[in-house]
Amino acid sequence: MSVSKGDQRETARTEAFSDGVIAFAITLLVLNLKDPLMDPALSMSNLNLYQGLLSQWPAFFAFVTSFATILIMWVNHHNMFTYIKRVDTNLMFLNGLLLFFIVLTAFTTLLIANHVGLTQTDNGRTAAAVYSGNATLLGIVWSTITYYSARTGLVPARPGGLRYLIGPLPYAIAFAISFFSAFLSLVVVLIIAVYWTLASRGFWRLVLSET
Amino acid sequence: MSVSKGDQRETARTEAFSDGVIAFAITLLVLNLKDPLMDPALSMSNLNLYQGLLSQWPAFFAFVTSFATILIMWVNHHNMFTYIKRVDTNLMFLNGLLLFFIVLTAFTTLLIANHVGLTQTDNGRTAAAVYSGNATLLGIVWSTITYYSARTGLVPARPGGLRYLIGPLPYAIAFAISFFSAFLSLVVVLIIAVYWTLASRGFWRLVLSET
Amino acid sequence: MSVSKGDQRETARTEAFSDGVIAFAITLLVLNLKDPLMDPALSMSNLNLYQGLLSQWPAFFAFVTSFATILIMWVNHHNMFTYIKRVDTNLMFLNGLLLFFIVLTAFTTLLIANHVGLTQTDNGRTAAAVYSGNATLLGIVWSTITYYSARTGLVPARPGGLRYLIGPLPYAIAFAISFFSAFLSLVVVLIIAVYWTLASRGFWRLVLSET
Amino acid sequence: MSVSKGDQRETARTEAFSDGVIAFAITLLVLNLKDPLMDPALSMSNLNLYQGLLSQWPAFFAFVTSFATILIMWVNHHNMFTYIKRVDTNLMFLNGLLLFFIVLTAFTTLLIANHVGLTQTDNGRTAAAVYSGNATLLGIVWSTITYYSARTGLVPARPGGLRYLIGPLPYAIAFAISFFSAFLSLVVVLIIAVYWTLASRGFWRLVLSET
Repeated sequence: MSVSKGDQRETARTEAFSDGVIAFAITLLVLNLKDPLMDPALSMSNLNLYQGLLSQWPAFFAFVTSFATILIMWVNHHNMFTYIKRVDTNLMFLNGLLLFFIVLTAFTTLLIANHVGLTQTDNGRTAAAVYSGNATLLGIVWSTITYYSARTGLVPARPGGLRYLIGPLPYAIAFAISFFSAFLSLVVVLIIAVYWTLASRGFWRLVLSET
Repeated sequence: MSVSKGDQRETARTEAFSDGVIAFAITLLVLNLKDPLMDPALSMSNLNLYQGLLSQWPAFFAFVTSFATILIMWVNHHNMFTYIKRVDTNLMFLNGLLLFFIVLTAFTTLLIANHVGLTQTDNGRTAAAVYSGNATLLGIVWSTITYYSARTGLVPARPGGLRYLIGPLPYAIAFAISFFSAFLSLVVVLIIAVYWTLASRGFWRLVLSET
Repeated sequence: MSVSKGDQRETARTEAFSDGVIAFAITLLVLNLKDPLMDPALSMSNLNLYQGLLSQWPAFFAFVTSFATILIMWVNHHNMFTYIKRVDTNLMFLNGLLLFFIVLTAFTTLLIANHVGLTQTDNGRTAAAVYSGNATLLGIVWSTITYYSARTGLVPARPGGLRYLIGPLPYAIAFAISFFSAFLSLVVVLIIAVYWTLASRGFWRLVLSET
Repeated sequence: MSVSKGDQRETARTEAFSDGVIAFAITLLVLNLKDPLMDPALSMSNLNLYQGLLSQWPAFFAFVTSFATILIMWVNHHNMFTYIKRVDTNLMFLNGLLLFFIVLTAFTTLLIANHVGLTQTDNGRTAAAVYSGNATLLGIVWSTITYYSARTGLVPARPGGLRYLIGPLPYAIAFAISFFSAFLSLVVVLIIAVYWTLASRGFWRLVLSET
């Protein structure tokens, strides 16, 4: 697939479609919060609502972490497209892949909500590995989009360097940690989200080699 | 995090994303209405559909209250962004926090639908406290956004004064009432929504010190 | 609430928000289609998938009818706002009421899917009455919006006359029929949707007294 | 229904509504991924999470295939509307029919996730027939839209020829295969999606007889 100017299109509708998918994915996260007394799979019918809600703290923790992560994704997507003025078919495909892993986050968050707690279990570690693994793939797709956009001149930046590691590497570390502690892995993902919230402008300045 | 002009961005895509999240959150509320004869957790298989629907009146009451509350949130969001012409990173973060509590409303409404009725129960009071507590946090974030926008000059208004209490205070009263009567607390939230529906223009005139 | 020019706002964001809610409501209808062999409430575990799907024809019929009805709502909403160039607070409130009944359609469709079949039952008639009653309220809100817009000069048309009945009256007939036959009532709603599909331009020409 | 210039409208809001529906439909697919240990219908409570997730591979395969298929639908919809500058009522109706089958994909994907595996079963073949049959109807609506747009001059192209078969024919082949092997039928649908991903520009060039 060669890239020619004739293949490039305006970004407005791609942004609108991405906004729709991301907004929907972030809202769907709330369906992972269950009424603890009404869900037969939770087996909490002997508790009152207050106790039931407290015992569901991993679901709330996962909700907060995923909400923050997807929100950061959107802020970065928003920022990226203030640099990218035109898209070609390859970039639309990469953007579709990005949306795929963002949508998958609703499912990986459900696994966290159901299986991670203070007690270490095999299922908890599996859930955390799936969750942080998905986030790592998201980071890799981000770096690929950044690299591709710089290489093909869709954004005014030089490609190359170690900077493409700063997206996926922290998530890869959370993935590695998940094999030892599910909860710690989740905390790392939350720290990454908080960090990007505070530093998102600096990230793009670094990646895009602004002066 | 200092705020500079260079940090400010256009609001169009932030509005579009917020519209998307609010529109989905308000629509998701309908999933809290269950077919009374089909949901095993409701144990109503001995009733006919008419009786089952009538016995579900708290779910409908919660649906109406939350729909009205989120609609007011949207109308106010719409009005606020006719004043705010540019956003900075802090405002995007505060807006994300606002969306977080709006999305959570779908879950707190589910708790109301399942646990509040005419009979006072501990679980009903817990559900009402969670519901009105979430609304209070929403009000606090609103006031913070209004204060921040005025202080940093993003809107043309003087910050300060007791006016920042009129957002969260009524919800805080509903929260206090929830410890005595779940139903009464819900009625207060509905009254607040109806009041803002009739008075939303006056609210912004007051908050923004228009002459 | 008096209406002044100063109260009027641009319609762009109201249209975008309405589009979001309607698009989401129409898509949520698909959740009313269940896998017949996986849903314990349907008690069809002795059938194969082909038989199960066939026995679910009322759910598909309700899906088609509601999809067509909401699509017509959107086409009419689209057409109406090509005439309405500015909104005031009252119109935003009426539009919110319209969205409320459109969102409720997802729930009334679920009742149809679960309770209406070829055999006449009390529950089937209850479901059809709720469904067509909701559609009648939708029609009344439409007529109110049309009347209000004409009266306040938001659209260039004379208010008045019997034309305000053509929205709600057919649905009111379906509502009356629901007390005798649930299935016939649903057929009337489908006929209305097909009619508006073929005649939507003529409808607005009539309502707005175009020459 | 005759087509006159006066019947034609701007496409902007039709595109926005279609984007909304397609974005929600693609995101709703994630609800077909279930936690294998929490869903009583899956009867996997004797497995650990890792084994449960692996045994759910058909659900993931169906998720990927449907996500890719709907994404291609959106890319093509996007491309088509760069050619179509105005819509008439017939085209809005055809577009509604297109959205209907796109939304139905969430349901047909659920049937695949629940019933298709490596073992050939009658239910698996039924699910694959419903899935590929729906995709074939989607292809036929696409071809109808392309033909109608060319005939009425909404796009600058000559109608006619065998090219209208390239949309539905591959899906019809998948439909025919579904009576022999559910899995093979699904593989064909995935290959079609990958092919269009790589060749979507060429498709429109061919269909629209660009020189």
